[in-house]
Amino acid sequence: MTQSHQIAMLGTGLIADFYTMTLHGQRNRDRVAIVYSRTPERGDAFKQRWGIARSTTSIEEAVTDPGIDTVVVALPNHLHESAVAAAAAAGKSVLVTKPLGRSAEEARRMLQCVEDAGVFGGYLEDLCYTPKTKKAVASTRAGAIGDVLWVRSRETHPGPHSAWFWDSTEAGGGAIVDLGCHCIEIIRNFMGKGNRPVEVMCWADTLVHPIEAEDHAVAWVRFESGAIGQFEVSWAFRGGMDLRDEVAGTEGTIWLNHFLRTGFEMFSTGGTGQYIAEKAETDRGWMFPVGDEVSELGYTDMFTDMFDSMESGAEPSETLYDGYVVNAVMDACYRSAAARTWVPVELEWRGGSTPRISRTERAEDGLVIIKEEHLPDGRRKVIGRDSRGPLVDRILT
Amino acid sequence: MTQSHQIAMLGTGLIADFYTMTLHGQRNRDRVAIVYSRTPERGDAFKQRWGIARSTTSIEEAVTDPGIDTVVVALPNHLHESAVAAAAAAGKSVLVTKPLGRSAEEARRMLQCVEDAGVFGGYLEDLCYTPKTKKAVASTRAGAIGDVLWVRSRETHPGPHSAWFWDSTEAGGGAIVDLGCHCIEIIRNFMGKGNRPVEVMCWADTLVHPIEAEDHAVAWVRFESGAIGQFEVSWAFRGGMDLRDEVAGTEGTIWLNHFLRTGFEMFSTGGTGQYIAEKAETDRGWMFPVGDEVSELGYTDMFTDMFDSMESGAEPSETLYDGYVVNAVMDACYRSAAARTWVPVELEWRGGSTPRISRTERAEDGLVIIKEEHLPDGRRKVIGRDSRGPLVDRILT
Amino acid sequence: MTQSHQIAMLGTGLIADFYTMTLHGQRNRDRVAIVYSRTPERGDAFKQRWGIARSTTSIEEAVTDPGIDTVVVALPNHLHESAVAAAAAAGKSVLVTKPLGRSAEEARRMLQCVEDAGVFGGYLEDLCYTPKTKKAVASTRAGAIGDVLWVRSRETHPGPHSAWFWDSTEAGGGAIVDLGCHCIEIIRNFMGKGNRPVEVMCWADTLVHPIEAEDHAVAWVRFESGAIGQFEVSWAFRGGMDLRDEVAGTEGTIWLNHFLRTGFEMFSTGGTGQYIAEKAETDRGWMFPVGDEVSELGYTDMFTDMFDSMESGAEPSETLYDGYVVNAVMDACYRSAAARTWVPVELEWRGGSTPRISRTERAEDGLVIIKEEHLPDGRRKVIGRDSRGPLVDRILT
Amino acid sequence: MTQSHQIAMLGTGLIADFYTMTLHGQRNRDRVAIVYSRTPERGDAFKQRWGIARSTTSIEEAVTDPGIDTVVVALPNHLHESAVAAAAAAGKSVLVTKPLGRSAEEARRMLQCVEDAGVFGGYLEDLCYTPKTKKAVASTRAGAIGDVLWVRSRETHPGPHSAWFWDSTEAGGGAIVDLGCHCIEIIRNFMGKGNRPVEVMCWADTLVHPIEAEDHAVAWVRFESGAIGQFEVSWAFRGGMDLRDEVAGTEGTIWLNHFLRTGFEMFSTGGTGQYIAEKAETDRGWMFPVGDEVSELGYTDMFTDMFDSMESGAEPSETLYDGYVVNAVMDACYRSAAARTWVPVELEWRGGSTPRISRTERAEDGLVIIKEEHLPDGRRKVIGRDSRGPLVDRILT
Repeated sequence: MTQSHQIAMLGTGLIADFYTMTLHGQRNRDRVAIVYSRTPERGDAFKQRWGIARSTTSIEEAVTDPGIDTVVVALPNHLHESAVAAAAAAGKSVLVTKPLGRSAEEARRMLQCVEDAGVFGGYLEDLCYTPKTKKAVASTRAGAIGDVLWVRSRETHPGPHSAWFWDSTEAGGGAIVDLGCHCIEIIRNFMGKGNRPVEVMCWADTLVHPIEAEDHAVAWVRFESGAIGQFEVSWAFRGGMDLRDEVAGTEGTIWLNHFLRTGFEMFSTGGTGQYIAEKAETDRGWMFPVGDEVSELGYTDMFTDMFDSMESGAEPSETLYDGYVVNAVMDACYRSAAARTWVPVELEWRGGSTPRISRTERAEDGLVIIKEEHLPDGRRKVIGRDSRGPLVDRILT
Repeated sequence: MTQSHQIAMLGTGLIADFYTMTLHGQRNRDRVAIVYSRTPERGDAFKQRWGIARSTTSIEEAVTDPGIDTVVVALPNHLHESAVAAAAAAGKSVLVTKPLGRSAEEARRMLQCVEDAGVFGGYLEDLCYTPKTKKAVASTRAGAIGDVLWVRSRETHPGPHSAWFWDSTEAGGGAIVDLGCHCIEIIRNFMGKGNRPVEVMCWADTLVHPIEAEDHAVAWVRFESGAIGQFEVSWAFRGGMDLRDEVAGTEGTIWLNHFLRTGFEMFSTGGTGQYIAEKAETDRGWMFPVGDEVSELGYTDMFTDMFDSMESGAEPSETLYDGYVVNAVMDACYRSAAARTWVPVELEWRGGSTPRISRTERAEDGLVIIKEEHLPDGRRKVIGRDSRGPLVDRILT
Repeated sequence: MTQSHQIAMLGTGLIADFYTMTLHGQRNRDRVAIVYSRTPERGDAFKQRWGIARSTTSIEEAVTDPGIDTVVVALPNHLHESAVAAAAAAGKSVLVTKPLGRSAEEARRMLQCVEDAGVFGGYLEDLCYTPKTKKAVASTRAGAIGDVLWVRSRETHPGPHSAWFWDSTEAGGGAIVDLGCHCIEIIRNFMGKGNRPVEVMCWADTLVHPIEAEDHAVAWVRFESGAIGQFEVSWAFRGGMDLRDEVAGTEGTIWLNHFLRTGFEMFSTGGTGQYIAEKAETDRGWMFPVGDEVSELGYTDMFTDMFDSMESGAEPSETLYDGYVVNAVMDACYRSAAARTWVPVELEWRGGSTPRISRTERAEDGLVIIKEEHLPDGRRKVIGRDSRGPLVDRILT
Repeated sequence: MTQSHQIAMLGTGLIADFYTMTLHGQRNRDRVAIVYSRTPERGDAFKQRWGIARSTTSIEEAVTDPGIDTVVVALPNHLHESAVAAAAAAGKSVLVTKPLGRSAEEARRMLQCVEDAGVFGGYLEDLCYTPKTKKAVASTRAGAIGDVLWVRSRETHPGPHSAWFWDSTEAGGGAIVDLGCHCIEIIRNFMGKGNRPVEVMCWADTLVHPIEAEDHAVAWVRFESGAIGQFEVSWAFRGGMDLRDEVAGTEGTIWLNHFLRTGFEMFSTGGTGQYIAEKAETDRGWMFPVGDEVSELGYTDMFTDMFDSMESGAEPSETLYDGYVVNAVMDACYRSAAARTWVPVELEWRGGSTPRISRTERAEDGLVIIKEEHLPDGRRKVIGRDSRGPLVDRILT
């Protein structure tokens, strides 16, 4: 009834720390049993830090260890494909950090490899699992805000902590690949996974840092329903990490703030050198810490979904196919930024079809109603159109 | 020392009400002396409502009245040009509501007419005069956030209150013309008036209402400095009026919320039928009123600037030329939305030239520095590049 | 129709600056015509700063000047009484800054002096005039939150800017006299001016500064209706100026934040040395400026009410009698803090009587209803009492 | 390494649901193995709802079951003592919901019973375990806000969901016992557990509901350091559940909002009948849901601490002794409310002693410094006292 998992953690960077903190956190029953690092020092330090039994410099050894059933790929982007192949070949469940690949083609190959092997695959897109996001998506699917019209997802901060992120060859791009992948999948969750991303318009530029990759980008993704997803990413934001989502629907609005304004506000004259939050810039003045980062950032719910799905034979909420779709959208972003025009999203679509946002005309008193307002005296004012004639204001009693 | 002005108010709609409430508000020394309306009933009601001496159905009579020195054009968009011409011909100061024209060409003609007549012209763009915006722009110009990289201006609400707004012939467009004009000029204020809007990318669609005009649009304006202005407009937002601006700079961030979250929060079981705020949707549940709307929306500071400038012989902060630039950007938006690609902003530019956002390379320890972080133990970690070789992480003491 | 006033400003400190900034601000038609200071240098500097015609070191000269009709008393507390007497003797309107006196007895004498002279008197309690407060009080009086149960008013900051405030002989006390006077009158506005403050419980202590006066106090004021007013004052708050009010009613809730969270948020790496806001502690990190301080802090609406009332022969919203009531409550605070128990508020009450908060019993299905909840399935759950028997849960359909 | 616990859950009300939701949530390794209810129907329903093996109507059977090692007492207050006695007698770990007892005397007996039996005891005060509270307390203890001067803890909502809460005999009181117990222990966490609560001043009244118990109370708790804890509780708050804490220190400020403003804001035209949050009043208009309630309310971290402490042989953060202290403070509240004066907190103190808040005098230029300000021109202004003479303002360069 309470099955537990033994995990091989591939990688020892910031994300591997967050994953392990989550897996070993609270009263969790799963454990990292072996850690792989390219350098023995980092592997040993990680082993010590998290109380893990073994470390190794061989992926093969890590993934074929008979004691482990699940492989978490927490490596730099250019190392994902070979790691996934090794884990799939070993018949293990494969959970891959974001982004899945450096391109849709690379992602598609990983997807195929895992599907051919018949093993469980999961896409570790934590920000789709934050408790706020999950509840907001559930409310949206239950109709609380009507048809979704527009989704904004923003992730900006002062830039990543390791050199490889800034190298577009190893990473596959810049801020789009690092941050946009989160935004795209958050947008898809609100739009509905069956709502096809049809085309993309993107602007990207390198405004601040001495690098080749983009440190800023904004993009629109047009979905089959007609709704627009909008993402904003930057590696030069000042003030911490800005993680916000906004959803506008025909019947409502959702605003999520995951980091800088979560109901925790602190002023300090400072100097204590405490850790405040990921990417916080200061330890004095007004600060906005986050309570439990691994919970608020979705790591906890993410692994719960992965292992529960594994045990019940279901698909997780975030599959490797989702990772592939995200890569396809990002590929379109780069093509659009270069072409300076809308470009189609090229992908093998499995999601079915979604109708256009409904626009049912309502007529009253001989008018097609455009807008209706309630006046303070109880009467109603309508703006409408009389058989395609001029628009009129009319007071109805 | 305390000169006062006598004003002819052309128009009796919502905006004329807001203008007169401001002009007659607090201990103000200026007065509306005559009001013009196309229909005598509306003119008389307005005269009664605001304690004005006279009403008329003749623009000519209103603008040539020897007792008045200033004409405020608060008419539907398609009536601006003839009203401006009449006021300029009468030698009166002319203050025109937003947008200036239905197109850059119409705006340019108005600008020329006023300049040829040698009378004072002002562009009544209230949202550039909100106390928050003024202080934020002043901080930006003083360098508090460094070079501006990106500005977002958002105005969305459930749609305007009069029929003519919804008629693209009379209005000159839809939500872009009604709301985008505010956003564009707010963005210009943060970018710097001398920073040329070079090109525009826009998406527009009619998602909800049975009209021809767009009820949704998002657009990017690329400025000469390389910075991006982004605006979002909608006539189908639920929850009130969403008026927010965000500015990201190399050294800081500004977030302004003008309406729904201003430090005034009220829950009521409701039913009292009170006025809460412009475009509020309900009088029960959690509500977010605004203290003094004419102050918070900038009307007070706007007229102060107009009359003070008139008296001192200076240009106001918002000139008719600014109105013309906004129209030129909006024209480009419509062309871009149709062409589905970036299009240049076509305008007679008077603003000089602005250099590219600075990107000074800094080297240390043989590395061109990409990012620098302070570790808890007091050491510094830098990510840098060694003579265009691979990127490296390095700890400096 | 647009009568203007010529004012004698007594005092040249921070509050005189704020008053004059307001009176000379926007398109205001009133003017300070003469300024009095005890020291000629300060008077001259003030005259220069604000473009005032004359300065004097004689109160007599200032208040008897035939060109002025209104005297504003903006002096340290111990100088109020003689200044009020001089102005009243000269037959001028008298507007007095807060607190009115150092004690109820002193305040009562000033009140009597002004009433005997038959001149207009006004109490310059700006925080009862902030646009937010005015709208919130109006909503409360219109019934939007039902019967008021509890009001919290909090004013805390790092301490005043002049030495006399810290001297309890000149000021009449410490943080209670400096800040509590605001809170008490804000509370009275929400409670209803006719709702008698019956008794007071207060704690006060000197926790941080090397002074005799209290630098911290919290107090409860019990009103005739049964409702409780609660104020919190401190001269040792870190993070700026905390100005918040909360009102709980039987049908609703109001939360006001006047300063540190008003929809204006700025992060700066700093160093520009700009003025941010009154009592701001820093010019870097996250900061929360206020748009137009003289408007947001109520100065603008306050003088509008004073002069409009003067012209129309009405009483202003804040009278000298209100100032006297505040002093009476503060006297009770000091007595309570010393006695460590509830003490009655001793005052000449002019306000009539207010009934106890209503508690109408409602019965249904044989139960006196204590609480009612709507279940998700549409049924209702009530908690009630059956003829004073045990309490029961019951589901009603 | 990953020991798991089998739990007997005594009680099937809202709190038992929250506890079991937590214990069975995420990838937790502990399980409720048996549930006790006084009525078989409720026990069976609970068993079904949470997938528990067995239910029983015998406490004895539940606590002596050899398969269980831990008893969670989630019963109405008047049933705590006998349940604790039974569990202790059976040699099981005992975790008791809040408040521990209906009086300090009852709490003391429970504490003694558990200590005599030598079993592990824990006090299930979830709100001291919210991730925000834990991080804020850790920052406070690390010195980020200096010496604590004042703590406000507020919990108000429209009233509890079961009849027994409203019955002061069964509950031991009203809103103080239901809500104040949370606030008192939150305050103690910020003050420091070794900082003795010396005396209490309390006001309590029944303003709204037809009950004998208080539905409103506010209280101050004076601690040995001189700092003041302030709590506010109400069973008649409108707008949801208001859970906020504020801490003022000599070097900083902390504001926590646990419920109504946590970065999740939703507007809906409504009618979907969804669960929004505990005590939410509506499913339309602006709503403020909470992401993961069991995490945000502290249940997750609370059980982690309990079981981790049990396994490591350490004391949990919240012990039964803490529960006893809370009861002692609440007893003092009731005595103070009746006596209308400060009353001492009577308790067996185990916490040691805490010095008075430090007030180190600093002298400069012959002045004892009271306040110091930095002027825009770089000079410093000080307010100080010259050998106990008059206070002076002085500009220092």
